[in-house]
Amino acid sequence: MTTAYAEAQTTEKKQSLAIIDSDVHPYMENGLATLVPYMSTAWQKRIGSGLGGGHTVASQFHLPLDYLYINSSGGMRADTARPGMSPATDPAFTAAQLLDGAGIDRAILLAGHLLGLGAMPDPQVAATIASAYNDWMCERWLQFDQRYRGGLVIAPQDPELAVKEIDRMADRPGIVEIFMPLHEILMGEKHYYPIYEAAQRHGLPICVHPSGTENVYARAPRMAGTPTYYIEWHALLGQIHQANTASLLCHGVFERFPELKVVIAEGGIAWIAELAWKLDADWHGLRDEIPWVKRHPSDYLNENMRFTTQPFVEPPKREHLTSLMDMINAEKVLMFSSDYPHWNYNDPTNALAGLPEELQRRIMFDNPREFYGDRIN
Amino acid sequence: MTTAYAEAQTTEKKQSLAIIDSDVHPYMENGLATLVPYMSTAWQKRIGSGLGGGHTVASQFHLPLDYLYINSSGGMRADTARPGMSPATDPAFTAAQLLDGAGIDRAILLAGHLLGLGAMPDPQVAATIASAYNDWMCERWLQFDQRYRGGLVIAPQDPELAVKEIDRMADRPGIVEIFMPLHEILMGEKHYYPIYEAAQRHGLPICVHPSGTENVYARAPRMAGTPTYYIEWHALLGQIHQANTASLLCHGVFERFPELKVVIAEGGIAWIAELAWKLDADWHGLRDEIPWVKRHPSDYLNENMRFTTQPFVEPPKREHLTSLMDMINAEKVLMFSSDYPHWNYNDPTNALAGLPEELQRRIMFDNPREFYGDRIN
Repeated sequence: MTTAYAEAQTTEKKQSLAIIDSDVHPYMENGLATLVPYMSTAWQKRIGSGLGGGHTVASQFHLPLDYLYINSSGGMRADTARPGMSPATDPAFTAAQLLDGAGIDRAILLAGHLLGLGAMPDPQVAATIASAYNDWMCERWLQFDQRYRGGLVIAPQDPELAVKEIDRMADRPGIVEIFMPLHEILMGEKHYYPIYEAAQRHGLPICVHPSGTENVYARAPRMAGTPTYYIEWHALLGQIHQANTASLLCHGVFERFPELKVVIAEGGIAWIAELAWKLDADWHGLRDEIPWVKRHPSDYLNENMRFTTQPFVEPPKREHLTSLMDMINAEKVLMFSSDYPHWNYNDPTNALAGLPEELQRRIMFDNPREFYGDRIN
Repeated sequence: MTTAYAEAQTTEKKQSLAIIDSDVHPYMENGLATLVPYMSTAWQKRIGSGLGGGHTVASQFHLPLDYLYINSSGGMRADTARPGMSPATDPAFTAAQLLDGAGIDRAILLAGHLLGLGAMPDPQVAATIASAYNDWMCERWLQFDQRYRGGLVIAPQDPELAVKEIDRMADRPGIVEIFMPLHEILMGEKHYYPIYEAAQRHGLPICVHPSGTENVYARAPRMAGTPTYYIEWHALLGQIHQANTASLLCHGVFERFPELKVVIAEGGIAWIAELAWKLDADWHGLRDEIPWVKRHPSDYLNENMRFTTQPFVEPPKREHLTSLMDMINAEKVLMFSSDYPHWNYNDPTNALAGLPEELQRRIMFDNPREFYGDRIN
């Protein structure tokens, strides 16, 4: 199967690529229950599978998500499934609607149900769920249509288990990056170095994405304060990406792992400019504190990090968009994403409207193509 | 209806009372959806009711519970419902099984689904859910069988809204206490004083119970550290009750509100002795720090606080039970509870086996009868 799969990726197809979508969320048709057959019998027992329970909450457990915040317009595009199905649970429907419909040539899958996996208190449970998901994603999605590419999920809680999973899955057809759900520990810390070593060794970028658990759970990534409303919370989710970017740069992670690549998906983009300027300015005065950072922090950012576009900025004055793109070095660091099937989906036909055509092409195709390398072909 | 209800509570019945169960959990047949008809149309819209969503997690929201910890034996007694129903959702079935079956004469209802309500980030959402539940509980449970008595639920986040709810509900037939889900702020703090004032004014005890959210959510009560396993987490849930007891006593809450009564349900009991001894000893040396505490802290504890029995202590050497009962002044401060329908239910016929009959009678009946007063008759 691997050979046939590789052969199907023809040179002709490569030349015609136009849009790479770096953030698409497949969902499991029965939530966590979908993964149970992909777990050992011992693990099925351990997670209480088969207890039933109906509405008895205490006999169930859930994947960590934003259960306490109410998105009163719903979290999903209502049209992303056939009647009676849940959004983005059918690879055929998604291929027709998103890939054919919007002209998307490669869609990188980031596990919709597992965004918050890093907040699970038990590292082994989290790792088991990640493994089961990866097998399910390969079987149900990546083998269905070669335009799908996968982020292999790891649980960040126990780096040793995460490295095992990376080694197990890295060479499966269609895998283009490691999707690491966010955890309470910032990304510059030593905790993650075994994961970064494995990612660099396999040539796989690490992708992070809002977890939907920020400041909700004890082991979740932190925000500044606990917001009251969904809108307030949602608008501030980028805080963790700002903190992680500063953490990666100040800990000198990209000196230690020069080939490591990091994708910040759905983390916002306008903040990049101010943070980079600030770090560069402070580095001049404070570099003795972090002597392992040899160059301007922004140098590493521009070389080793990329940022996905959705939800794209919408300044009331369109001319500000051009300035902003220049401030953040968009022609190099931005990569298009739609965030299908979420409620605030960005359509590729109009998401970047108003930007110069050449810049659109870089964001839609060249940047991700260069960053992901041959695996995206 | 109120008059008929009151008349039914005859003097004869009073004399024959034998068991008061201070911790029974009714559940809603459809979870949170059960409460939607008890909310205004505006609130239904606000909580996204009617969006459907199936398995699409982001278009739902949940009541805060222990969703991240896996009770692999299930959270409920499997026999507490008819086939196809969820445990403790049918007042007739519960009356037959628990009240008739175990000979329980009064069962105080503590909202099973709302134990974690205090962790909701939006105080208004929490208050709206509490109000809807109270109306549902009166209609579905308290009016069904006079042996049921209710803890009226308040949301602790916004004391002003909580006081309004107390004033609205305090005189409804069958209400015997205020059930206050735990919040991140410790119970001695000023935040709660309007609630305590209202409780004292209406002669209603305040009851607290493990929230199932301890150290899970940002606004939940705190534990020392984040446990990994359910068993580890569950064994330590009493920490918040220890902290709240110390907080109530050191802030002098019972000097300020001398008629206020507090029930700690399912909080454990053996720790009471050491905490009381320690506070009394320290008070001798440190009373200048808390001059508003006029007497030994244990005096207030013994007068104003009560503790329910389940899960009852089970020392391997039975003779230790007698010592322990004396250490904690059990003949005054303990009140029997079964925790129906939870998995670690205590049956009244054997829960207190081995204790002197007179002490059993005090715990089963006299203590709660004296503490709750006429409302329990």
